Amino acid sequence: MTQIYNFSAGPAVLPKEVLAQAAAEMLDWHGSGMSVMEMSHRGPEFISIYKAAERDLRELLAVPDNYKILFMQGGGLSQNALIPLNLLGHKPDGATIDFIHTGSWSDKSIKEARKYAHVNVAASSTTAVPPQAEWRLTPGAAYLHMCTNETIGGVEYDVSGNQPDAGDPRLAGVPLVADMSSHILSRVIDVSKFGVIFAGAQKNIGPAGVTIVIIRDDLLGKALPVCPSAFDFKLVADNESMYNTPPTYGIYIAGLVFQWLKRQGGVAEMERRAIAKAALLYHALDHNDFYETRVAKSSRSRMNVPFYLKDESRNEAFLAGAKARGLLQLKGHKSVGGMRASIYNAMPIEGVQALVDYLNEFAAQQR
Amino acid sequence: MTQIYNFSAGPAVLPKEVLAQAAAEMLDWHGSGMSVMEMSHRGPEFISIYKAAERDLRELLAVPDNYKILFMQGGGLSQNALIPLNLLGHKPDGATIDFIHTGSWSDKSIKEARKYAHVNVAASSTTAVPPQAEWRLTPGAAYLHMCTNETIGGVEYDVSGNQPDAGDPRLAGVPLVADMSSHILSRVIDVSKFGVIFAGAQKNIGPAGVTIVIIRDDLLGKALPVCPSAFDFKLVADNESMYNTPPTYGIYIAGLVFQWLKRQGGVAEMERRAIAKAALLYHALDHNDFYETRVAKSSRSRMNVPFYLKDESRNEAFLAGAKARGLLQLKGHKSVGGMRASIYNAMPIEGVQALVDYLNEFAAQQR
Repeated sequence: MTQIYNFSAGPAVLPKEVLAQAAAEMLDWHGSGMSVMEMSHRGPEFISIYKAAERDLRELLAVPDNYKILFMQGGGLSQNALIPLNLLGHKPDGATIDFIHTGSWSDKSIKEARKYAHVNVAASSTTAVPPQAEWRLTPGAAYLHMCTNETIGGVEYDVSGNQPDAGDPRLAGVPLVADMSSHILSRVIDVSKFGVIFAGAQKNIGPAGVTIVIIRDDLLGKALPVCPSAFDFKLVADNESMYNTPPTYGIYIAGLVFQWLKRQGGVAEMERRAIAKAALLYHALDHNDFYETRVAKSSRSRMNVPFYLKDESRNEAFLAGAKARGLLQLKGHKSVGGMRASIYNAMPIEGVQALVDYLNEFAAQQR
Repeated sequence: MTQIYNFSAGPAVLPKEVLAQAAAEMLDWHGSGMSVMEMSHRGPEFISIYKAAERDLRELLAVPDNYKILFMQGGGLSQNALIPLNLLGHKPDGATIDFIHTGSWSDKSIKEARKYAHVNVAASSTTAVPPQAEWRLTPGAAYLHMCTNETIGGVEYDVSGNQPDAGDPRLAGVPLVADMSSHILSRVIDVSKFGVIFAGAQKNIGPAGVTIVIIRDDLLGKALPVCPSAFDFKLVADNESMYNTPPTYGIYIAGLVFQWLKRQGGVAEMERRAIAKAALLYHALDHNDFYETRVAKSSRSRMNVPFYLKDESRNEAFLAGAKARGLLQLKGHKSVGGMRASIYNAMPIEGVQALVDYLNEFAAQQR
């Protein structure tokens, strides 16, 4: 096997230790004679796997007791519909959802929400998190939705203190809903500031097909009548994610990732590493006029680093050279072009260093 | 590892060869340096895996060209809502859905459908498929829903020629919708008789978290406005199951199962084995007055075999003795009690023989 570094935006690199353990346990989990894939979700073996995963995630994110953690299916995209379907049931007709728009994922959420309610875009920028003082909020909004890390555009909240201030009097009684798909578990967060946090697993958690929803108790039981039962947060919560058969193997892998995170030192240590990796990469991009970035420094994502060759006619040569060195999946999203390096928790700093070395050498060669 | 036989109703036993291959490829799929879990769903490696899985399933079930195969998330249960959400959009208010009720899964489907339309239960029996001549069908119904194998109660269509006759003039223009979750790929079917076939993967296909939908082209594009985009059959079909990130690893395992099925001789061979395994087990139950079954012989499921000890005070002793022999997950569903042996494609006849031997020995011991 060649040493490769996989900069995919997701599904993405996973810790080697996790994959090795999964391979070793594939045919016989802990002497049970069964693969985890073969276990009844209601049997004691899988229940123990589920409970450990839930407990470890709760510990890693310091999730308060009045929040439920749901393991669902459908991906982050499905939550753009499932959030309004689950939160608007007790609202009179004409509910308004406020959005902070910071990029492609905000776009998708806004478009989907319009199917269920009036939408107000309270602030918009795709190169920086709009300052909270400038948000044009709707008094009594059903909730305020934000994508706290834009996977495609690379805008992240709280890189330099721009985390939403839930104490803002305009937000009194308005739940914050955060799509944290692409940076969950990479930084310490205060869950109590949010009403709902959701995240597709396929970046920092595990395989595609698992979606995490963390929801404050009082927001349960507000589903619209047309919400499918399998995706009704209250039914999922009341049945500990087993109202229907959960994605058992994905939950098992997520649980192994949570154990790996704990062994590494938890989320605070992941944040320390994320800061170091992002600093290394942005420093190279900032100090080499062959490249450019387009996100304000205050809002730069530590997870997804979009960048452009100033001479875009070199793009194909850049990607071919990267691939030859085992630096994979660096092409930017088709909607924005250029390059993107996703450097999630499981990306070692050696991978980032290899990319930095290549950035510098490629630029030098082209001069 | 002890030799065990896992009679779980799902998630359920998988072919050992499939699990061994998955373990061997876990850290490095075909020299890519990546696990399948780490691959971008839009990269050439995963696209090749997806296309092979789709092609093999199409071949195994002889799916006609005018049908799309979708790989979705949410499980069979979610389809109870997603089917009406996707099929009722072009119906005037007051659409009626006809149901044939044959057990617990029909119950669940009926309950969920009532959220979206008027429901007519055209026939009902939990011990036999009601004869088609007696179905009280609604002229111009939106569709007719049937669960062609009831996982809990063990009623299966077409054991002795009771497959629905789509040529019934009362069904003219009424699409048949079939929940085949627990017997898909265990028998030859004529897909062209159905409008939609759906199946959760976790019985005969692969791991929980993948749901297969096979739908006739002309039924696409009829979604209700409140249908979540991520679950809109037309969007999923138009994007080859990649409108959002699909459950990539589950699809890969399903693909390995499809390859295994082809190596075994395909669905016709699976049907031959299913007939043999079911005959072996029912024969033992019929010829030992210690046990009883409650489904009419004409409608007995080849996949899920519920049975009861006539003296139910022996249930715990029966299950303890079974477990001691490595015969696992034989307890019946809590809603019906008793015992249930699920003998899916991946259950070798040796497992059924081991169960039969135990049935006979346990009965003899208790006399």
